[in-house]
Amino acid sequence: MTQAPELAISQWFNTDTPLTLAQLRGRVVVLHAFQMLCPGCVQGGIPQAQRIANLFSPDKVAVIGLHTVFEHHDAMTPVALKAFLHEYRITFPVGVDVPGECTPIPQTMAAYGMQGTPTLILIDRAGRIRKHGFGAEDDLRVGADIALLTAEPASA
Amino acid sequence: MTQAPELAISQWFNTDTPLTLAQLRGRVVVLHAFQMLCPGCVQGGIPQAQRIANLFSPDKVAVIGLHTVFEHHDAMTPVALKAFLHEYRITFPVGVDVPGECTPIPQTMAAYGMQGTPTLILIDRAGRIRKHGFGAEDDLRVGADIALLTAEPASA
Amino acid sequence: MTQAPELAISQWFNTDTPLTLAQLRGRVVVLHAFQMLCPGCVQGGIPQAQRIANLFSPDKVAVIGLHTVFEHHDAMTPVALKAFLHEYRITFPVGVDVPGECTPIPQTMAAYGMQGTPTLILIDRAGRIRKHGFGAEDDLRVGADIALLTAEPASA
Amino acid sequence: MTQAPELAISQWFNTDTPLTLAQLRGRVVVLHAFQMLCPGCVQGGIPQAQRIANLFSPDKVAVIGLHTVFEHHDAMTPVALKAFLHEYRITFPVGVDVPGECTPIPQTMAAYGMQGTPTLILIDRAGRIRKHGFGAEDDLRVGADIALLTAEPASA
Repeated sequence: MTQAPELAISQWFNTDTPLTLAQLRGRVVVLHAFQMLCPGCVQGGIPQAQRIANLFSPDKVAVIGLHTVFEHHDAMTPVALKAFLHEYRITFPVGVDVPGECTPIPQTMAAYGMQGTPTLILIDRAGRIRKHGFGAEDDLRVGADIALLTAEPASA
Repeated sequence: MTQAPELAISQWFNTDTPLTLAQLRGRVVVLHAFQMLCPGCVQGGIPQAQRIANLFSPDKVAVIGLHTVFEHHDAMTPVALKAFLHEYRITFPVGVDVPGECTPIPQTMAAYGMQGTPTLILIDRAGRIRKHGFGAEDDLRVGADIALLTAEPASA
Repeated sequence: MTQAPELAISQWFNTDTPLTLAQLRGRVVVLHAFQMLCPGCVQGGIPQAQRIANLFSPDKVAVIGLHTVFEHHDAMTPVALKAFLHEYRITFPVGVDVPGECTPIPQTMAAYGMQGTPTLILIDRAGRIRKHGFGAEDDLRVGADIALLTAEPASA
Repeated sequence: MTQAPELAISQWFNTDTPLTLAQLRGRVVVLHAFQMLCPGCVQGGIPQAQRIANLFSPDKVAVIGLHTVFEHHDAMTPVALKAFLHEYRITFPVGVDVPGECTPIPQTMAAYGMQGTPTLILIDRAGRIRKHGFGAEDDLRVGADIALLTAEPASA
């Protein structure tokens, strides 16, 4: 199993202090990568991430949104994202992925090898990637996947 | 925790041999009680039970439908149920709850104290009732609830 | 344009007096053919027919359900239909299509050449068939189709 | 009936030439006012406007989107709107409402007395306002409303 690369974030929303995966070790991390103008994210992935955040105890499961802008960079700015998060009543922490150099793909997106948005990544309590899904995910399966990871021991 | 009462079934569909909870010990049992003319069952509970049956391995999770007719008894006969299961492509085993004596409530429904349909009951690997829900249930939560029970040891 | 054949009905629900197309001349008639155990009818066609009945004035638009049982005859009896209409809160008149002789296809279904259920037939104010649709129909289009027929003069 | 005020538009998308209501006289105009970050617009109003544009002949019914930004002005810029229209596959013409002076409410929105977004306004073939709806609208009713206006004579 692959260790999850640390997040590279230029700006956070919905959290007072920056978050790191290192600091979240011991909890299951649900990393939801999206773009605010991606219809599949708005209709499916983002509401699902919010439902996950509402269901599981934050002591056990940390939901983190990752704004991985790889197209329409001048439209999906942090200012626009802030308004989006407000209008859609998103309450979980969201980090802006650091833009790439000489590439439209931002850095965390590249480090994880994501194919597009929405992408759902589950990281276990020991910091390892256990699921990497591109596109729509079934609530029933995602609920089961996350629950099983919470039932594992914290250390590898 | 309460031990789950054994099922009282007059007729089975979608299984060659009658099922008992005793025989399913070691597996998580998802007991979905419905009536074929209950709109909330048709729109929500029954499709959810089918999704559960599709997702989890039958070695670990046994989905059982229970036709708990407590009203319109002359409409929801076993003949009608058979046509219903065919038309709605239900593949999991379904048992007809034994009619009550001097009461419209059938016997298994009474033994479990169900309030109506749909009702979802989760029975753990040791045969104990762990969840008893009346009405619509969230896929995310149900997926998590079932998964956690599969992760428990088989004996109490 | 074809004149709509008169309905052959063995039993009515949700109306005190039997209905005939002759008697409804001057109004647009929405004829919704269904079977109570047809999933596409339960999920799509029947709720749409109820929405039509709720939206348009009965002085202008008469919604009639037609129970065209062509399979599972012993399951979809008038007794079962009565319970179904009660449970699904259907308020518009529903007639049971007269069973065929030497054929599973009932008489009105045969007279109209329907291919299956759900079928939606629109009859204009002069009693002529103006739309004959098999399968799911779009609300926007159906609303427009019916409205245009109400705007036509009553006589051919 | 009130004559529909002319549109005040700073920039058009999805049309080579600017549109005016005067020029569309003789057709029914469906004016859909939205904001690109309004959840009710994205989930309901905008897809409905696209369905209307797909269903009715453009010779008879002109669908026009109006981007009435009254909040989050720095987020919902024309650059962001352009990306939004591309991502959501919007094909009907969309005009950007001219910003207000000394007020967050843009000019066309103010002239029509709109309460918020989404708003659906139907303008008849003679240029008069015939429907002014704020919030979610039923497809069946909207289809009927539009169809009836197309059946009216062109001159008042």
